[in-house]
Amino acid sequence: MTLFRTPIPVEEAMDKIWKYKKDGQAEEINMEESIGRFLGEDLIATTDVPWFDKSPYDGFALRAEDTAEANSNNEIEIEVIDYIGAGAVSEKEVQPYQAIRIMTGAPIPKGCDAVMMLELVKEKERDNKQYIRIKRKLEKGDNISFQGEDIKKGKVLVKKGTKINPGIYGLLATFGYHKVKVMKKPIIGVFATGNELLDIDEALVPGKIRNSNSYTLCAQIERSGAEARYLGKVSDTYDATYEALKKAMNEVDIVVTTGGVSVGDFDYIPKVYEKLRVEVLCNKIAMRPGSVTTIAQLNGKLLYGLSGNPSACYVGFELYLRPIIRYLLGSEYPFLKKIRAILHADFKKANPFTRFVRSKLVLQGTKVLVEPVGLDKSGAISSLAFADCLMVLPGGTRGYEKGMEVDVLLLEEQTGSEHK
Amino acid sequence: MTLFRTPIPVEEAMDKIWKYKKDGQAEEINMEESIGRFLGEDLIATTDVPWFDKSPYDGFALRAEDTAEANSNNEIEIEVIDYIGAGAVSEKEVQPYQAIRIMTGAPIPKGCDAVMMLELVKEKERDNKQYIRIKRKLEKGDNISFQGEDIKKGKVLVKKGTKINPGIYGLLATFGYHKVKVMKKPIIGVFATGNELLDIDEALVPGKIRNSNSYTLCAQIERSGAEARYLGKVSDTYDATYEALKKAMNEVDIVVTTGGVSVGDFDYIPKVYEKLRVEVLCNKIAMRPGSVTTIAQLNGKLLYGLSGNPSACYVGFELYLRPIIRYLLGSEYPFLKKIRAILHADFKKANPFTRFVRSKLVLQGTKVLVEPVGLDKSGAISSLAFADCLMVLPGGTRGYEKGMEVDVLLLEEQTGSEHK
Repeated sequence: MTLFRTPIPVEEAMDKIWKYKKDGQAEEINMEESIGRFLGEDLIATTDVPWFDKSPYDGFALRAEDTAEANSNNEIEIEVIDYIGAGAVSEKEVQPYQAIRIMTGAPIPKGCDAVMMLELVKEKERDNKQYIRIKRKLEKGDNISFQGEDIKKGKVLVKKGTKINPGIYGLLATFGYHKVKVMKKPIIGVFATGNELLDIDEALVPGKIRNSNSYTLCAQIERSGAEARYLGKVSDTYDATYEALKKAMNEVDIVVTTGGVSVGDFDYIPKVYEKLRVEVLCNKIAMRPGSVTTIAQLNGKLLYGLSGNPSACYVGFELYLRPIIRYLLGSEYPFLKKIRAILHADFKKANPFTRFVRSKLVLQGTKVLVEPVGLDKSGAISSLAFADCLMVLPGGTRGYEKGMEVDVLLLEEQTGSEHK
Repeated sequence: MTLFRTPIPVEEAMDKIWKYKKDGQAEEINMEESIGRFLGEDLIATTDVPWFDKSPYDGFALRAEDTAEANSNNEIEIEVIDYIGAGAVSEKEVQPYQAIRIMTGAPIPKGCDAVMMLELVKEKERDNKQYIRIKRKLEKGDNISFQGEDIKKGKVLVKKGTKINPGIYGLLATFGYHKVKVMKKPIIGVFATGNELLDIDEALVPGKIRNSNSYTLCAQIERSGAEARYLGKVSDTYDATYEALKKAMNEVDIVVTTGGVSVGDFDYIPKVYEKLRVEVLCNKIAMRPGSVTTIAQLNGKLLYGLSGNPSACYVGFELYLRPIIRYLLGSEYPFLKKIRAILHADFKKANPFTRFVRSKLVLQGTKVLVEPVGLDKSGAISSLAFADCLMVLPGGTRGYEKGMEVDVLLLEEQTGSEHK
């Protein structure tokens, strides 16, 4: 089979794929299972926080005006008429020169408008009554956490599609979301193709290597927030591949294959796509690695034919599939976060295609630097272990030099970018 | 109970705790369950990668010297004597002006020292024999991926204690580590204390709030790589707290309580610690928030009495417990990664104690900026949802201004720092 392939720019490939993005669905789960999931609706404050005026310290709630004359030479005596711990409420209302002993977190009693810290008073008992002596003046409002000062009721605190981190998890608890709407995890089916592939528990034999792409890919899928379903290895035959893909198309949300998309004689994916009557969106992208990345759609369902080369497969996933997954997970920022950085090493290889170099971000002094890691070949695997970003080097006839400014896509960052 | 407390510097507190760090243990699990776990031993290359000279392209393996005279005006004809796909090995050895058709990933056949790409030749058949015609000169070694060019056998690729990311997971597959040694997850028991606390599914009643600290803390524990075991809420009574802590000490690796460590009348933790006969390592640290953080040890086992204030609890965990967990997980870089950044907003509040401000890192242009998020009060919860770092502002009488350089501790970064 001969296939004429014209490379299209990275942005054009993304535009074609982006037409087939879909809204994901939400599901309700127990809050305890929601860490690391993506919010299925905006997180809205169901109350003010704090939801009543409270004391941030252990001390005495009182009327600030009663302390007006207090100073180091003039102690003011105030009677303590009640005693409340956190979680309790005083039924009493203070009158002039009265106070209520109050613990951290307890509501400010009626009539009080300031809190004197425990450490700053002298306590004494007289005639079976409790008194404190104060040497310091308080202003109205001193040492009170006011209702709503942190959060106002009704405020949208966190947008749908945001990954639930420890702080967000705490907000869910605060507002009593013991059932949480999270986005359903899309299920991504992964096939490995290639007669050269051994299982991970097989010994090496001449000409063969162990399957690693599918595993890396499954971990990338999990990192993106979706569920990876490894569907096994199909052999390099047309029929086996066709049957396997056809079945998978009905069982998962998106089907991914690794390998078999090149122009070689054993590369059956294009032929299988033809028999499946899919619409091929791209089969050659002007990028390195991963130019053979082939992406198709059938009845709105996407199929990804990623390269069999480890680095090419890795990059192809992050550029073209991760945004689709994050969109399904409700994110307004589905693309890898893009930042600028200073190239920290020469990169002399010129290339007509845009190059995505597996790299490491270095925050040095207060500067953002980036440097390539490991071997920059599409077949390399060592670089993938240490890369936390992809450096974007536009195609051209010249190489790049240390000190130049470049775009960088962050792989581990969760907030993402709005624009591809 | 009156307790005299002298604040000690943050570094001194850490030094005292650090004496009780422990080496964790490794366990063997199936590779498929190892994503996100921490390596229990160095990951060593069991073979070269590639482990044989291979073709990175679909094409023809041949002898470079046979192409010496080829150019656009002089086509060289070469006979194709065999045909190998990936995973196969040719038994033949090429002689002068012979080639073997070879697919991506297949081993370079005997006698060949270069590969001509498929797209660059014309194929023809004559007398039942296959030929290619070549118009381009190749150098010895052209288009060959050499054995070991990516990774050399025996090399330590990834150190023990490193979190398994997609790339590392792929390395495990490549080297056939279908059983992987990972660090056992330490089990961290979490208690909430405080009569003001409601469960997350309870309606608010006057003076009470829902328990959020324990949940945030559990998520922080999971983020750090340990297993969180929520042990429930103990009421603010001495006996209940004593019994609960005593029992927990025998069941988990580290016990954490939130709340009850202040100087208030319902703060039983110090008294319970006394009865447990623990050695208190610190009960007042010169920091904001979290100065009441109380840490003790009993027979080498650590107990953390974190503040009941949400932000103080959060910061106390990240500074003093996370490094202990990461050390248990085998990391050589157990501390939060420390970087420098430019303060992107005024921060005028002065304080005698070191302040850890919940902040957000902003990579802008090629500069590292940092700005506070939300309300900077120890009781705030909104700031925790958006913080991805802690800005470190040393104590002093003056505030800080936009443009000043400060230390920043990264919360989501996985590589960590060697030094506290």
